[in-house]
Formats: sequence, C-alpha cells, structure tokens
Amino acid sequence: MALDELADVGRDPMRGGYSRHGFDAAELTLREWFAEAAGRVGLEPETDGNGNIWAWWDGHRGPDALVTGSHLDSVPGGGAFDGPLGVTSALAAVAALRAEGFRPGRPLAVAVFVEEEGGRFGVPCLGSRLLTGALPAADALGRTDRDGIPLADAMRSAGFDPDRVGAEPDRLAGIGAFVELHVEQGTLLAPSGAALGLATGIVAHGRWRFRFAGQGNHAGTTAMDERRDPMLAAAATVLAVHEVAAARGSRATVGRLQPTPGGTNVIASTVDLWLDARDDTADRVQATVAEIVDAAQRLAEARGCTVEATAESISGQVDFPAPLRDELSAVLGDLPQVPTGAGHDAGILAAHVPSGMIFVRNPTGISHAPQEHAEPEDCAAGEQALTAVLRRLAGA
Amino acid sequence: MALDELADVGRDPMRGGYSRHGFDAAELTLREWFAEAAGRVGLEPETDGNGNIWAWWDGHRGPDALVTGSHLDSVPGGGAFDGPLGVTSALAAVAALRAEGFRPGRPLAVAVFVEEEGGRFGVPCLGSRLLTGALPAADALGRTDRDGIPLADAMRSAGFDPDRVGAEPDRLAGIGAFVELHVEQGTLLAPSGAALGLATGIVAHGRWRFRFAGQGNHAGTTAMDERRDPMLAAAATVLAVHEVAAARGSRATVGRLQPTPGGTNVIASTVDLWLDARDDTADRVQATVAEIVDAAQRLAEARGCTVEATAESISGQVDFPAPLRDELSAVLGDLPQVPTGAGHDAGILAAHVPSGMIFVRNPTGISHAPQEHAEPEDCAAGEQALTAVLRRLAGA
Repeated sequence: MALDELADVGRDPMRGGYSRHGFDAAELTLREWFAEAAGRVGLEPETDGNGNIWAWWDGHRGPDALVTGSHLDSVPGGGAFDGPLGVTSALAAVAALRAEGFRPGRPLAVAVFVEEEGGRFGVPCLGSRLLTGALPAADALGRTDRDGIPLADAMRSAGFDPDRVGAEPDRLAGIGAFVELHVEQGTLLAPSGAALGLATGIVAHGRWRFRFAGQGNHAGTTAMDERRDPMLAAAATVLAVHEVAAARGSRATVGRLQPTPGGTNVIASTVDLWLDARDDTADRVQATVAEIVDAAQRLAEARGCTVEATAESISGQVDFPAPLRDELSAVLGDLPQVPTGAGHDAGILAAHVPSGMIFVRNPTGISHAPQEHAEPEDCAAGEQALTAVLRRLAGA
Repeated sequence: MALDELADVGRDPMRGGYSRHGFDAAELTLREWFAEAAGRVGLEPETDGNGNIWAWWDGHRGPDALVTGSHLDSVPGGGAFDGPLGVTSALAAVAALRAEGFRPGRPLAVAVFVEEEGGRFGVPCLGSRLLTGALPAADALGRTDRDGIPLADAMRSAGFDPDRVGAEPDRLAGIGAFVELHVEQGTLLAPSGAALGLATGIVAHGRWRFRFAGQGNHAGTTAMDERRDPMLAAAATVLAVHEVAAARGSRATVGRLQPTPGGTNVIASTVDLWLDARDDTADRVQATVAEIVDAAQRLAEARGCTVEATAESISGQVDFPAPLRDELSAVLGDLPQVPTGAGHDAGILAAHVPSGMIFVRNPTGISHAPQEHAEPEDCAAGEQALTAVLRRLAGA
C-alpha cells in the first residue's frame, strides 16, 4: 500500500525522478500494480472507456457512490508524491476500514485517472476531461506524443479500444461525491503549522502552443544578417512571457521548448514552445495570454519569422463546494483552507459532482521535480484523515 | 549510383528531410547499400576500427592511395545532398572510369566517414577525428546520444567493436591525397555563374555546450518572483549569442536547446543549449565565445541560476594546400575558388594528407534543411569533374 511499492516503476535516469505517462510502459506496470493492490483490500477494479480505473468495494457500484483517488502518472522527471500519494492513501484507508470491520452504507470506489499531468499528449486531466465530456473524443484521439504517436494508436498498443473513448454521463451520474487527497504543491500550509489542509478552489489555467517558423539553414554558412532564425523569436518570447505575467500578477511559464530539426550546426526551421498560464479567473488568464501573443507576433516579425498560437486546454477557476468542505471540516477539525494554482481531476469533476480535496503539507513547496517531498508522519496523517472521511461519508 | 537510390532511407516524418546518424538503423541500411553499390563498380569495401568504410579499386590498398568520398549521415532533418552527393559522385566516377577501360596507376578508394555531422554524439567529423587521432578514443566512447546511449554501446549494438576505436596512423600514412566533392552550403558560386568551384579553406569553428541550472518546480504554484528558472537565463543567452556574433563579425548559432524535464506545467530544473561558433581563425572564435560565456554567466546570475560551458569540439582554420588545388585547376579549368564556413572530413584529413574539395553549386544556399538542392545538371558536372580528377591523379 505504501508509496515504496512504486519506488522502482518509471524512474527517469536522464531527468531524475519519475516519468510515467498515459499508456506508456511504466503506466501499464502501475495499472497492474493497482489491480493487484486493490484486490488485496477487497476492491474490484474495472476500466472505463477512457482508461480510468474504478475499483469498487466488494464490486458494488453506484448510484450515489463515494469516490476517492487520484492519478498515477507524472510530469517528465516528476516527484514520487504528486498523484500516487492520493491513490496509496485511498487504498490504505480502505484497508484500515476493512480492519475495523466497517461496512459502507453506499457504493465506494478508489479511482485512478489517466494522464492527469498531460505529460504525453499535452492535455492535463485527460482522463477526467474525457469522462465528463469537457474534451470530446474526436479532439483527443489525434493528439500526438513527442514521437508523433497519436493517442488512438497509443491506446491500441496498450490494449485499449479507442472507439470506446468519450463522455460517460451515466457513470458520472452515479457518483455522489469525490474526495481527492494530494500532496500540496506550494507552501501555504507551512505557516499554519498544520500537516493537512482543505482546498478552497483552483485558479483558472490553460496551455497554449506557439509555433515560430523561419528558414532552416546551415549555421556556418549563413550570414548573421540574412537569417530568419525562429530560435531568436522564441527566446525573446520566453522573456516576454515572464515580464508580462509578472506585471499582470499572473503566473506564466515556458518549461518546454523544442527546436526543429534541433541540430547544433543547424539554424532551426521551426521552434515550438508551450505556455502554461494561470490566474484567478479565466478572463484574467485570457488577457495575459492575449498580451503574450501580441508580443510574440511583434518579436517574430522582427526576426523575419511567423508565429501561430493554439490553445491546447483552458480551464476556468474552480470553487470547491462549501457544503462538502464543511462536512470534511466536521470530520477533520478546523484545517486551514487554501487555494491552489495546480490543476487536478477534482477540479474537472467539480463541474458535475460535489468534489473536495485534502492537501498533505509539502515542506519546501517543490513539486513537479524529483525533490518533491512530504514527511512520512504527514502522509500518515493524510491516510488517517481520509480513513475518517470515508468512514463518515460512507457510514451506514 | 544516383542519389535516388537513397531517397527512401532515413526519411524523417517529424522534421522533414532525412535523419541519418552514426550507427542508427538508417545509417546501417546506407552501409549495406554502399557495400552493394561499391561492389557493382568493382570496389572492395573494408571497415576500419572507427566505422569508416574504405572501398578499394580491385581490392588494391595503399601506399600513396588516392582517396575520394564523403559521408552518408545527415543533420537531424537534413537535405539529400550534404554528404551522399560526394559518395554517389565518387561511385559514378569509378563506374565511368571502368567503362572507359581506365586502370589506375596507384591505389584508389572511395571512403565513407562516419557521423560527419555529429548529429548523434555531438562531435562533428567523428570518424575522421578518430582516424587521425584528433579525438582520442577515450574521449569519444563515453559520449552519449539524446537517449543517453554511449557511443561504445551504439557501436556494439550495430555490430562494431569499440575496442578497435582509435587513431590508425598506418592507414593515414597510406593516403597520398584526398579529394572530397560536396554540395556548396552557401551562395558564393552563384554570382560567378559556375556550376562548380574549389575550396580554399574552412573557417575555424567549434561547439560548446552550456548547462543552465536553477530549481525545477510547479508552474502553477511558484510565485514569479521566487523562481530560479534556467529557461529565462538560456533565452537571454540565445539573444546574446546573436548580438555578440553580429557585433564581432563571427557566426554563432543556437540550434539545439533542451529543457529538463521539459514538461509544459514544470519550471525547468536545467536547460542545455549548444553553441555553434565560427570565424576566420581559432583565436577569433575563442574571443567571441569568451564574450558569450561572460554574458551567459551574468544572465544566469541575474535569474538566480548557474551556468557551465564546456567545449565539445574545436577546429582551427584549414587552408587546403595550393599545389593540390593547382592540380585540380589544371584538370578542371579556372574554377572559382571559395572559402567555406562549413566543416568537412577533408578539413580534418588536411592536417595529415594533401586534401582538396570540389563544390557543386547550391542555387539558394540553403543546407542542413529539407529544401537543400542542387540542379541535376550541376550534379552531373560534378561527376564528370571528379571522373577527370581521378583519371588525372590516378593515371598510370
């Protein structure tokens, strides 16, 4: 049940940490592990058409099911906690309830959502977006990974049927509440001295892809003033992203940038970069991104290049419902309540199902990096809290 | 013999053009093709300890051999001509000489040098540098490709023995002259109206790798003013590279840049970029790079990051010897003589063996890109010129 069981799956020797992505070899191993571990505590797993896993207490399904869980995938080179902690804590909570002879008064499931980080196909919360219909199947199946493999092919190779991908309203309607436990990805809990907290909401966020196009050429033979080098336009835009976001009070990041062809002795012909932008509301995000797009266009023209910006995903702000938060507080005592800049499957489900989140303290706030950490005693507190929540919310 | 025979080998559907790198699947196919094509014109190929191929007329080897040839590898997403044109033209020249009943008065070989572009292991002219000892075996075998595979392992997987890698002074001493035909990689020939030209020399050039290190973190939860984002330092350095080179009259390019971990929702922990720098002399290159390194250090510090710069290869300027050029001119008439900013195996061999180059006109000057082109009639003129050169220099 412990995170230790996953310690060797999907390690990334190049980046450090873990690289576990939707339908890749590491993720398939994690699926096998989850089926086995869920079986150990009397859960019967089934996989929906989108690759999300639902492991039901004694096999009893909805309606009005109480669902907990998180995701097992990571960003490239991610930490050990982001995602898996919510899954292992859920299994531990079920084990604890079994041990005390608890019998749930409603269907209870542990869920694992696929490709929450969007690390392979670019769309975060891929599994929950497909489940809810926030992302139509037709928009998803053609999305490609870094090797040009479309989602449909990746699913087929992993033994899934892409024809089954799409919204599952009946499944969604059978969920009465969703509670996700997750490592905190900032340091808002630390000042309060609390090991745990509740999420009030998620800021609006989105991803855009910028493609700068110039003229590929030989790095040794092309005069400096005859170049149309998209790397220069992209580099200037990276700096503009930071300046615009800082000035507007948004958060904006370029963490992925890919020159093509990417040879040392080659002036790039195109450069793709991905923008992650967040702010309190969708309008504020859009305004920040509009200013960045304007800057990118000016900077591209100045280098004789062109740029196209495409939205890959946009999520409005999420307010987790106060009644569920009040119920969690009633069980867990007066925990600090904090917002988060990070997206979560709970944020996608919240549009359809009362959803809430429990955060486990992160002493440094570092996340999406191998150094991500939570203390063992804080993780244990999280397990106990989730156990108490399930006991209360699924009590007969 | 025509370039058409290679049209389908190593196409790169992602980048366009061709990606053919030392000891990869495409290159192994090209080796098979070469062995077969060389055999068709009565050449007996052997492979040296570094993976370079030497195909000998009737199997007769040195001393005082006349060698022609080039390379079959490409940059990532390269054109069809850079490298292969010199090999196919050499085979065509041998075929033409056979057809006219020519019998060489000295050993004659067509050579194929491995990984001239350095597209996989980072060192351009890898095969000729190893042959001449310009790059010691110990410095080469541990160099890794983008997937972290060391050269030694790549060679082993492809059926080569890395223990045989290293300088081959006896082989080198057996070469009396080396003539390489190559597509031009600029537009110096175009104004003269000539289809062909001779190279006077190669400018000094080198490659450096810069590693910027900061703190990887979550793109959504880390405040803009608390970031130590190496992407910002790298982007500012990309712009500085262009400015410094333009101001100093050098050429300098960043065509490859790799953030780690490279996730959209992740502030990078490190960013590697590769600098290609060229100028008339090694001193001028070093001075330009020193100014760039200074700038990179300032820019990294300003973002709370560090940077380390490492030279991956440095080549001094090459002057091809006038006596061989005079001999080529005597055969080919008064061709324009031009320098080049591009590195070549002939430039590496020139330190040990009288070497020369014949350039085939490139109407746009575009090279290291899918659009690279030479007109068929210019290529035919190149074949005829190389035939005449071999006939004269290897005449009995």
